[in-house]
Amino acid sequence: MKVEGKNYRTVWIDGSSVFMIDQNLLPFEFKIVELKNYLETCEAIKIMTVRGAGAIGAAAGYAMAQAVVEAPADRRQAFIDQAYETVCNTRPTAQNLFYAAKRVYEKSDDAYSAVREAQKIAEEDAEASRMIGKFGSDKIKDSYRILTHCNAGWLAFVDYGTALSPIYTAQAEGKDIFVYADETRPRSQGSRLTAWELHNQDVPHAIIPDNAAAYYMQKGMVDMVIIGADRIAANGDVANKIGSLEKAIAAFEYNIPFYVAAPTSTFDFSCPSGNEIVIEERSQDEVLYQTGPDSEGVMRTIRVASPGSEAHNPAFDVTPAKFIRGIITEKGIVNASTEAICQLKEMCLQE
Amino acid sequence: MKVEGKNYRTVWIDGSSVFMIDQNLLPFEFKIVELKNYLETCEAIKIMTVRGAGAIGAAAGYAMAQAVVEAPADRRQAFIDQAYETVCNTRPTAQNLFYAAKRVYEKSDDAYSAVREAQKIAEEDAEASRMIGKFGSDKIKDSYRILTHCNAGWLAFVDYGTALSPIYTAQAEGKDIFVYADETRPRSQGSRLTAWELHNQDVPHAIIPDNAAAYYMQKGMVDMVIIGADRIAANGDVANKIGSLEKAIAAFEYNIPFYVAAPTSTFDFSCPSGNEIVIEERSQDEVLYQTGPDSEGVMRTIRVASPGSEAHNPAFDVTPAKFIRGIITEKGIVNASTEAICQLKEMCLQE
Repeated sequence: MKVEGKNYRTVWIDGSSVFMIDQNLLPFEFKIVELKNYLETCEAIKIMTVRGAGAIGAAAGYAMAQAVVEAPADRRQAFIDQAYETVCNTRPTAQNLFYAAKRVYEKSDDAYSAVREAQKIAEEDAEASRMIGKFGSDKIKDSYRILTHCNAGWLAFVDYGTALSPIYTAQAEGKDIFVYADETRPRSQGSRLTAWELHNQDVPHAIIPDNAAAYYMQKGMVDMVIIGADRIAANGDVANKIGSLEKAIAAFEYNIPFYVAAPTSTFDFSCPSGNEIVIEERSQDEVLYQTGPDSEGVMRTIRVASPGSEAHNPAFDVTPAKFIRGIITEKGIVNASTEAICQLKEMCLQE
Repeated sequence: MKVEGKNYRTVWIDGSSVFMIDQNLLPFEFKIVELKNYLETCEAIKIMTVRGAGAIGAAAGYAMAQAVVEAPADRRQAFIDQAYETVCNTRPTAQNLFYAAKRVYEKSDDAYSAVREAQKIAEEDAEASRMIGKFGSDKIKDSYRILTHCNAGWLAFVDYGTALSPIYTAQAEGKDIFVYADETRPRSQGSRLTAWELHNQDVPHAIIPDNAAAYYMQKGMVDMVIIGADRIAANGDVANKIGSLEKAIAAFEYNIPFYVAAPTSTFDFSCPSGNEIVIEERSQDEVLYQTGPDSEGVMRTIRVASPGSEAHNPAFDVTPAKFIRGIITEKGIVNASTEAICQLKEMCLQE
């Protein structure tokens, strides 16, 4: 996707180096970092230079490929085994990370196969996102005003993204659209990353406080909601960034179609419902402090809450299937129902 | 209420000066400002040194009283008429402002009557808040967890507050309660003012991101919601801080009683419904920037959103009457219905 008019992916390999957009610096600085060996790439995953399910997966695949390339002839297998363990330990819960590292590890007989497998993982991710854009855009009519929450854009994947991919496709198809980007407190991925993406892609948009979503829905100014997903249960319940549930309830009240966009890899067919999904409670400091540049561009961390008080900070919530109009996947749009997801599972298994 | 062991009101008059707690500095600094003439008081209302329905009303009344005191003999009526217009134009949505300015304007024959009327408005506000606490506390059971949005505490009135008054009363009655204080972006009155009040009053509480309210409701961890109101229409629709609507819809979904606490002066009996209420759009900078102390206590303003993007910032929304369990007034709890509000109007007119 475009940054300052030039095309980029979030992460790629060139020769023996992995390159990625430093997402810790966004949206205030755009910088590409070069990671010259697998340990540097592991460190980049660990410190969240790269974030988002698909992008982490691709980076992990590339790290494994680098390790295979680097492995010295005299202790080749031991080096690769050690690298596999190191890659898998960079982030504790990223499903895509384990999946990608394993795929490349299994092709580690020679450097060419390993690099090719890592490339394939990244290509598959980009292609799934592209297809989500295609299917999702079918639901977007000309002049639609679309609300999104958090960042499920191309920065979270290799290219295109999930929730934002239908928006980019609709724009490319010449549809006149407008996007409301929820700020998405406490980490503000909406006002920082989604807004940055939309600005670079010249998509007309406005950041709104999370509190304003229902207001615009009530006014008839939102035609559609699209969000991403962190995990989708077998009954269609969706775990996603905190606040997704509130948007879903409000959209349901005003009969506004509420879509979830995610590749089939996000489905956890073994998880019967949202009740089984454990919600991560993150540091209260994310609510109590904020970081950003002052008027001279110096990054500052400030306290934004009353000094005497504490905060709670659940990172995700579960949107019950009943509020979801459809789930946009790379295989088409499926209903958020046990039956439809069961069929999707069969389709995935047949491949 | 108490600040550092000493009793304060939010706004008062002494001689020809109006004094108020500078709410723009809270919660990081506690400071009283002196406003020596009616224009200074108007400016303080405009820049939100004082905010909240009742406190704005009292400040507006005092500003009008100052104008009457200041009016030069040679163009007395013109000066007072001009002041009346200026006071009424400080904030667009505040019902109490118009109400208080008008009451003092109508007593502007002499300075003594005007000041006395302004004092009376402030006293009535404090007494109404006290009664709201009494009626509201009847609905609070022991061990209740109560969600509130924005700040409708004593800082928003002359004393006690509205949404928080029942909480203070329940605490005084020995009930074990816990309060979830919505952060209330973009101005964060919840994490700054409500949290500050609750901390000073030793009420157990936690700040939560606005996005998390429905999450706690879904988990069964919210027993009741109490918010304030900026303006209540004759059919029970309530204009209040942006985000109130979202909380109301979510509370309705989970069958959690949603109460609005407001003095009868907040009712606009001439306004048939929420459709007629014009919503103030405030500066986008409130969304794009945040101010607070850094680790060394130096106040900094930082950009918290992507530099290329703009924001929308509607300050209020309208919660339809159907989502409201009851309106807690100083005359008792009334249904959010045309019939009940019509009866309330009769009651008010008889006084």
